[in-house]
Amino acid sequence: MNVKNELRVNALEWTGQSLLVLDQRLLPEKVNYDEYTDSQGVFKAIKTMRVRGAPAIGIAAAYGVVLSVIQHYSALDSNWKNKVKYDIQLLSTSRPTAVNLFWALDTMQQALDAKADNPISYITKLAKQIHSDDIQANLTMGELGADLLKNTDTVMTHCNAGALATGGYGTALGVIRSAYKRGLTKVYAGETRPWLQGARLTVWELAQDGIESTLIADSAAAWLMKTGKLDWIIVGADRIAANGDVANKIGTYSLAVLAKQHGIKLMVAAPVSTIDFEMESGEGIDIEQRNPNELLANCYINNDSLVSAWNPVFDVTPASLITAIVTERGVVLNPEEKGVNSLKS
Amino acid sequence: MNVKNELRVNALEWTGQSLLVLDQRLLPEKVNYDEYTDSQGVFKAIKTMRVRGAPAIGIAAAYGVVLSVIQHYSALDSNWKNKVKYDIQLLSTSRPTAVNLFWALDTMQQALDAKADNPISYITKLAKQIHSDDIQANLTMGELGADLLKNTDTVMTHCNAGALATGGYGTALGVIRSAYKRGLTKVYAGETRPWLQGARLTVWELAQDGIESTLIADSAAAWLMKTGKLDWIIVGADRIAANGDVANKIGTYSLAVLAKQHGIKLMVAAPVSTIDFEMESGEGIDIEQRNPNELLANCYINNDSLVSAWNPVFDVTPASLITAIVTERGVVLNPEEKGVNSLKS
Repeated sequence: MNVKNELRVNALEWTGQSLLVLDQRLLPEKVNYDEYTDSQGVFKAIKTMRVRGAPAIGIAAAYGVVLSVIQHYSALDSNWKNKVKYDIQLLSTSRPTAVNLFWALDTMQQALDAKADNPISYITKLAKQIHSDDIQANLTMGELGADLLKNTDTVMTHCNAGALATGGYGTALGVIRSAYKRGLTKVYAGETRPWLQGARLTVWELAQDGIESTLIADSAAAWLMKTGKLDWIIVGADRIAANGDVANKIGTYSLAVLAKQHGIKLMVAAPVSTIDFEMESGEGIDIEQRNPNELLANCYINNDSLVSAWNPVFDVTPASLITAIVTERGVVLNPEEKGVNSLKS
Repeated sequence: MNVKNELRVNALEWTGQSLLVLDQRLLPEKVNYDEYTDSQGVFKAIKTMRVRGAPAIGIAAAYGVVLSVIQHYSALDSNWKNKVKYDIQLLSTSRPTAVNLFWALDTMQQALDAKADNPISYITKLAKQIHSDDIQANLTMGELGADLLKNTDTVMTHCNAGALATGGYGTALGVIRSAYKRGLTKVYAGETRPWLQGARLTVWELAQDGIESTLIADSAAAWLMKTGKLDWIIVGADRIAANGDVANKIGTYSLAVLAKQHGIKLMVAAPVSTIDFEMESGEGIDIEQRNPNELLANCYINNDSLVSAWNPVFDVTPASLITAIVTERGVVLNPEEKGVNSLKS
């Protein structure tokens, strides 16, 4: 497989000295990369959602650590390790739900702890390895997921679990890319309010690869299940608990309940770095509440307003509603039965 | 009850010579009434969704017929009856799903057929009667619905089935207004993509009456049901079939399935004019498909685009998922059992 040809869409590009971040807030109307040369910049890029998606956040944070090491170690600062540690702590506060962020930062911190001197090339290599491992994981998941789909010709996805959300190729969209090559014909994408990742990112990303897609309002999914043809729903994940419960974009739980009622299968595709083996069940997962202003008209953004908003941006889908969890280490069917501990290395 | 005090929000105002229509496309940022002096104008007001909501569409159309009669009868045109008939046919093509439109136009046509001479005051009185009957029906439904809610303190509504969608007071929001006076404390409103009737109209309308509300993304409703407190979902209807199946804003079916799974009750509040007794079941109801451009980013609105959209704006909720249908003639509990024929006059 020619990996280069698979990657027409890149959320992140490492230049050797800086991180280029595609500003996903401007898509699909504008393709613009911002360049970051320090970890504070990367923190801001994650916090402001220029880059989003659990694996992509983790990779961006890893490069953020590299930029911190370059900055502080190059300055011949004897306190550089503490300064990097401080930057890592800052990066860890950029978003709360995706576990890949904490996993990537832990991985980088451990490497720094183990290697005292001349760390720049070493730590750069590690960040690039995290990035390329993620791409390879996505390519593997794509094939494993496509194997499961068999002769399916209609799928739906939610949010953006694509190249834009990962190191490249994508998790859910990686499966869809692989299945498309094998004959998948119809892809529905939910708009994914309030940030419209489906309407702005997923359909754009698929179009870059020449894959047609059909956008629907999130609330139309049930009616599609009832009146149309839909075989599988395929989503990514922000955190998977040991028992197989999955935190993902708000609306995933809704789709999961509806899919079960309509006899439609649900696949979660995510790298093992998304699994939080320490988290017993989904009940413990911190669900990010974002600014109500993402939902409110301007005239309601004042202290006297009688109109407020409730804006959780993730939800938790119990393992019992999931048909299969697809990772680069293999597939867990019916995760309700034994959780995902079999995927532990 | 002081009816005047109940009506702070009016979608339609009849001046005696013209119809003032609140342009709901501009809410909540701007309150602006357009004045229409002929039926073509009213046709346009309905088609462009300046006025929307099944009962309000019916009332607007009735006034449109009055304007047609004023125009053609006043012109001493011997062919005035045919010209009015032509205008009625035009009005009937403005929107396809709400049955109130056809009911109101039939009522006006029958009155015209029965009364040959000097029809202006007669037909004006009839349109005003349709309007005031609708308000009275809403006030009655409000009390009947509030009786059902008993000690409920948390409800959710979808779309806008309020004063803005009716002659005044509202169907679902009429129930919420009445229940609020009796101690209802918390009202959630779904955004209602793609037209955002919940975000733009429902929360605005409730705020006009001093009622607080909390907006949520449509796809967050399931997560609210799972993690929060929600006793009832209350919606309006665009058409009710004889067996109790209900066509309403896209997303209603989704909420109904989810409510059933979470043990939450579903109330449909609608005047008897919304019931299509000739329609055996919901399967026969014409579901309006609106322009995909309501969902698509501008860059996808071209013939070569790989991105399309599926945009049904209504769906059908089977009677089996409905706890109660509330009309001005009474309440049908568990409509699945015997449908709504008991409400026939």
